[in-house]
Amino acid sequence: MKISGLLTSAGINIALSVLFISLYSVLRKQPANVRVYFGRRIAEEHNRLREAFILERFVPSTGWIVKALQCTEEEILAAAGLDAVVFNRILVFSLRIFSLAAILCVFGILPLNYFGQDIHHVRIPSESLDIFTIGNVKVRSRWLWVHCVALYIISGVACILLYLEYKHIARLRLRHLTCAMPNPSHFTVLVRGIPKETKESCSNAIDDFFTKYHGSSYLFHQVVYKVGKVQKIMTGAKKAYRKFKHFTDSTIDQRCRAISYRCCLCGASSNSFQLLATGLEQNQGKSDLQDSSLKLDDQECAAAFVYFRTRYAALVASEILQTSNPMKWVTDLAPEPDDVYWSNLWLPYKQLWIRRIATLLGSIVFMLFFLIPVTFIQGLSQLEQLQQRLPFLKGILEKKYMSQLVTGYLPSVILQIFLYAVAPIMILFSTLEGPISHSERKRSACCKVLYFTVWNIFFGNVLSGTVISQLNVLSSPKDIPVQLARAIPVQATFFITYVLTSGWASLSSELMQLFGLIWNFVRKYILRMPEDTEFVPSFPYHTEVPKVLLFGLLGFTCSVLAPLILPFLLVYFFLGYIVYRNQLLNVYRTRYDTGGLYWPIAHNAVIFSLVLTQIICLGVFGLKESPVAAGFTIPLIILTLLFNQYCRNRLLPLFRTTPAQDLIDMDREDERSGRMDEIHHRLHSAYCQFHDTEDIPLEKIQTVGSDEEQGCSSDKSNGKESFEEPRAELSHPTLNGLPVSRLRHAVKSITFLVRLQKRGLSE
Amino acid sequence: MKISGLLTSAGINIALSVLFISLYSVLRKQPANVRVYFGRRIAEEHNRLREAFILERFVPSTGWIVKALQCTEEEILAAAGLDAVVFNRILVFSLRIFSLAAILCVFGILPLNYFGQDIHHVRIPSESLDIFTIGNVKVRSRWLWVHCVALYIISGVACILLYLEYKHIARLRLRHLTCAMPNPSHFTVLVRGIPKETKESCSNAIDDFFTKYHGSSYLFHQVVYKVGKVQKIMTGAKKAYRKFKHFTDSTIDQRCRAISYRCCLCGASSNSFQLLATGLEQNQGKSDLQDSSLKLDDQECAAAFVYFRTRYAALVASEILQTSNPMKWVTDLAPEPDDVYWSNLWLPYKQLWIRRIATLLGSIVFMLFFLIPVTFIQGLSQLEQLQQRLPFLKGILEKKYMSQLVTGYLPSVILQIFLYAVAPIMILFSTLEGPISHSERKRSACCKVLYFTVWNIFFGNVLSGTVISQLNVLSSPKDIPVQLARAIPVQATFFITYVLTSGWASLSSELMQLFGLIWNFVRKYILRMPEDTEFVPSFPYHTEVPKVLLFGLLGFTCSVLAPLILPFLLVYFFLGYIVYRNQLLNVYRTRYDTGGLYWPIAHNAVIFSLVLTQIICLGVFGLKESPVAAGFTIPLIILTLLFNQYCRNRLLPLFRTTPAQDLIDMDREDERSGRMDEIHHRLHSAYCQFHDTEDIPLEKIQTVGSDEEQGCSSDKSNGKESFEEPRAELSHPTLNGLPVSRLRHAVKSITFLVRLQKRGLSE
Repeated sequence: MKISGLLTSAGINIALSVLFISLYSVLRKQPANVRVYFGRRIAEEHNRLREAFILERFVPSTGWIVKALQCTEEEILAAAGLDAVVFNRILVFSLRIFSLAAILCVFGILPLNYFGQDIHHVRIPSESLDIFTIGNVKVRSRWLWVHCVALYIISGVACILLYLEYKHIARLRLRHLTCAMPNPSHFTVLVRGIPKETKESCSNAIDDFFTKYHGSSYLFHQVVYKVGKVQKIMTGAKKAYRKFKHFTDSTIDQRCRAISYRCCLCGASSNSFQLLATGLEQNQGKSDLQDSSLKLDDQECAAAFVYFRTRYAALVASEILQTSNPMKWVTDLAPEPDDVYWSNLWLPYKQLWIRRIATLLGSIVFMLFFLIPVTFIQGLSQLEQLQQRLPFLKGILEKKYMSQLVTGYLPSVILQIFLYAVAPIMILFSTLEGPISHSERKRSACCKVLYFTVWNIFFGNVLSGTVISQLNVLSSPKDIPVQLARAIPVQATFFITYVLTSGWASLSSELMQLFGLIWNFVRKYILRMPEDTEFVPSFPYHTEVPKVLLFGLLGFTCSVLAPLILPFLLVYFFLGYIVYRNQLLNVYRTRYDTGGLYWPIAHNAVIFSLVLTQIICLGVFGLKESPVAAGFTIPLIILTLLFNQYCRNRLLPLFRTTPAQDLIDMDREDERSGRMDEIHHRLHSAYCQFHDTEDIPLEKIQTVGSDEEQGCSSDKSNGKESFEEPRAELSHPTLNGLPVSRLRHAVKSITFLVRLQKRGLSE
Repeated sequence: MKISGLLTSAGINIALSVLFISLYSVLRKQPANVRVYFGRRIAEEHNRLREAFILERFVPSTGWIVKALQCTEEEILAAAGLDAVVFNRILVFSLRIFSLAAILCVFGILPLNYFGQDIHHVRIPSESLDIFTIGNVKVRSRWLWVHCVALYIISGVACILLYLEYKHIARLRLRHLTCAMPNPSHFTVLVRGIPKETKESCSNAIDDFFTKYHGSSYLFHQVVYKVGKVQKIMTGAKKAYRKFKHFTDSTIDQRCRAISYRCCLCGASSNSFQLLATGLEQNQGKSDLQDSSLKLDDQECAAAFVYFRTRYAALVASEILQTSNPMKWVTDLAPEPDDVYWSNLWLPYKQLWIRRIATLLGSIVFMLFFLIPVTFIQGLSQLEQLQQRLPFLKGILEKKYMSQLVTGYLPSVILQIFLYAVAPIMILFSTLEGPISHSERKRSACCKVLYFTVWNIFFGNVLSGTVISQLNVLSSPKDIPVQLARAIPVQATFFITYVLTSGWASLSSELMQLFGLIWNFVRKYILRMPEDTEFVPSFPYHTEVPKVLLFGLLGFTCSVLAPLILPFLLVYFFLGYIVYRNQLLNVYRTRYDTGGLYWPIAHNAVIFSLVLTQIICLGVFGLKESPVAAGFTIPLIILTLLFNQYCRNRLLPLFRTTPAQDLIDMDREDERSGRMDEIHHRLHSAYCQFHDTEDIPLEKIQTVGSDEEQGCSSDKSNGKESFEEPRAELSHPTLNGLPVSRLRHAVKSITFLVRLQKRGLSE
């Protein structure tokens, strides 16, 4: 590929990006799209945007960019949680290190590469891109030490920046733990692998065990039931009720008193609401009857939340091996109430290790199979081979414009389409693994997507790009550095176009929210459905973190060898910095948070990138027969690995557990100020299994469920709550166009639910 | 090598073994050797062996074999600790599985191999050993399924036996923890990385921290001083004193009252003893003065033992991350008092990770360098190459007897000599690593020696034996199974001779205690030194465990492919079973115990052996073009790995930590019976830094140091103790032939010590 080809590609992409960004700045001002572009703000801040028709709405503006740049870390932390801050810091780190690398390499190394051989230089636009890589430097050149010094500076500064960021995020994480509102998850331990004994009920077994061994700090517990089917029906019923409520909003009393409203469609009476309420009251009365019915369900009990008096006691209980059978009475700190992945809680603990191995094998197989389309696509970028294989295309491909388009643009686009399927598949794998929280699931998927991306995009291209269908390169690990050293400068062209297409384009589409926009339009104007006020998406860390880290890997590996990529990469990171901040502030809603656990992933990825870069440079210096440069690279690799080990020792433990000191201080502070009783009180209603956590904020539950003291009461508080809660924020007119089948299903579900309630299935 | 060569070798070794064993049964009955062969019994059981001269003493007997076979596991546990039981179980496991394998393979597979090809069979003694390996089976033979079935049976039974042993040892470990006498180490936590603050003294800092954060369970603490030099002098002085005491045993009062005995050799007065005692008394009086001098030494304080009220509290404190800096206030459960490796305790905690990496790299380099002599030695076993390289030997080597000797015997002997250097070097590496206990050091050395042995003896021979100087086999991992599959049947000859020479001979020398015997003789009759009553060696787990595991590896890998090794191996294990039990009961003294931590090492080694065997068989079946057998081997590998993972989940945690349930039960039991106060009382004198733990049993310290309550008092109790303790068991006459220089050194050391005591260096 020549410089002109690159410029064509860059031109197309810049034009597209500018177009998309301008479009976004117009679209975001349209009131119809407000739910697409301001989902978080509407859901959390309840502010209303003006709807007046003014010309300004149709003029592109840059105010949002200024806003995104101006907002502080504190604001991001408050609006989008710690994970958003971590993501932001990954971008900041990338911006910093690649600014330095760009200055260093573009001004220091690019000229060296360009004038590396005594050849006649043609006009720059017709120059091949290979001229700008280290491939153009003479063998045994006396200028290779410059490359080595640049490598040292980049590695050193990267390590220093990494350490500062790591420390900063560790501090934020601790502050996040200590300064936050009293969090029920700090007091709660999830117990799995409760032994099944036929004589006593499961609930009694838990009580006995924790009273005996953690008596001084044990408060009470709440059993998690294995109720896959019932739960699905409950959720279905609740959704149906919500729709039903839209329909009846103006005709029935908000508090569901006994109004015998006859549904016009299926003939069922709406006093099923009344029935339910009565059922609940009856349940409260006959607690003795409940006990007998409880025993029937005991086989179903597989996990429980156990509440402790202090945070420290919960931590201790979660970290200690309880009994001499490590598969029984397994304790973990509970995830936050909104974060609990209920349907995985009742998985038998014994199964989990098998599941983990199975999904690991599954993802490895998936990773390896994916190489086939990647290899094929890579073939597309090599024109001669394509012409050879598909001779009928020869005529088309010989046109200059087509050839530039095919080599510069098409491969990345096809790859991109394939890659869209990866994230959902990895999420599926992570779900099967059996994590107990949403955040853990996403983090695990993030790791999988990262491995996948690095393997398939980076190594897949590098290793297969040079010699197509040479898959047996794996059989000789000793040759890999040399292989990489040969391949990277050659593949730099592909990586540059990849940054242009995949990088820039993905940012534009992220900003535009094309899918959300179209769906919103279809929903509103074609299906004429009511707006789904509840659904605001979470930030897709599992796709975006690997993407940013992959570009970091490309940047590091190409920096010294083919520095032409760096300006494009810098533009990507800067654009990403603006776009992602804007999206985090406006679009996505944070329901759950890993508490900064994405940072160790990012740290490891950067260390891997650095070491890989150094190994590749070692290979290149070897190929160029420069023993001095190669010799100086080896200590650099060792130093980088030592730095990584130091970080693992010094900072990683803070991301795995919580220091006792801080927890004890928090406990004392709460006890001193007398808040502890209130916190204990709130714990009773913190975790609700049959509660659709997506729609009711925690604080509301906590105030409602305050009159219940005797044991867990998830169902009751939840049942009452979601049926009684007045939905003041629903300001849209009720729509009569609800499909008949939905309504019928809703009523059916609710009647079934009432029957279940009567049979005392829930405590 | 031919059968006749093998038989020659076997004959030599059998003769040697019988000779050594007979010699042993005679020598052990000589009273002069009683300290060599009954070290443990004399030191621990204080029983006296009759010394009468009777003829029976010079007739070989087998009574000791019967005794060794008859003793129960309980007796071994009582006499030599849990590690000895684990070692015994490794031998039992090996015996069981290889009995099965021998029956299966010798009767099932050996005939198949022998008649594998339609060749004319000569007389069996002239038959090459290769005829008995799988190499003799035809390609695409329809009998290969027998090999596959045998592999399945051996793997399956091995896994079942492994699981039963693992469970048994886990149970023993728990019982060992719970049934033992109250152990001070259960109540004690070793704290390292105590932050240095100039304002307050180190001791106060510890007090403040633990009173604040573990106030309810914290008892008191004891600072470990960084006193490398002083400690050395103290130990030297004590040793000198002991010698001095032999010398003056009959002339001065045992309790060191003020007797001004003038030393006849150097003129120093022996009331230095008096001085010391006075110094101690003075120290007790002026505790206010001590405080001021204590502060001077605070910079030296790097670690401390912190004592807790209950076992559970100590466990909790040791497992929780204390502060937000994981390098500070690092807590670990303390090792047992006799097990503490004092000189490593004051190593700065920050240094340890660097030390670990450095020793890891050091041992890897050592492992790789060792390949060179191994490769050379392997060359010796290939006669043609040797003749080619050293042509002047041609004449000698062409003699039939020499050729058999060289191929069958010499290589192993030379290798054996080289290998004697390995264990001390690995112990040195493990010491540099900075473990806090003797047992941990030995365990770490055991792992290193194991890796070393497996790599150098097994892989070194297999990979270099087939193609000499082909060291680049590492560069193609895909070929390794095929390479191994080709090499193992060929190398089986070497392994058989290795079992004969190294295995049998090492058992004979272990039984004979040749070094100890000679040293004892030289010491007694040439140097005329007094018997060193204190020195009884510990069992060298770090050399013996890897040896047994290596033979297990050889057995598994050769079982199906070259079953001729199995009878020899069975003899080895049976002999080993007798010899080691005898040695554990009579010779070695158990000073420290890892509590069964050698078992996970053995388990992993066996799993590794099984998987390696399966991979090699896969390669062989591939070479023999038997897709069915190869196809059935793959699920076997997966099943074995799954089994290993299950054991890691189900049983390994018990070897890493202690279940809270058992500890809490023990605490309650002690509290109920009122023993707790007594235990707390004893803690004060449990750990003594300046106390030479090798000579005074724990129970004596505990009774002596009972009147000291105010903080730690290691020095005082120790000082008093070792100088006052009457040594009733020393029944030997005092020897006057002590060298002059030693006595002078002794007196010098003691005077120096007294000066130090006066300056208040010790608390």
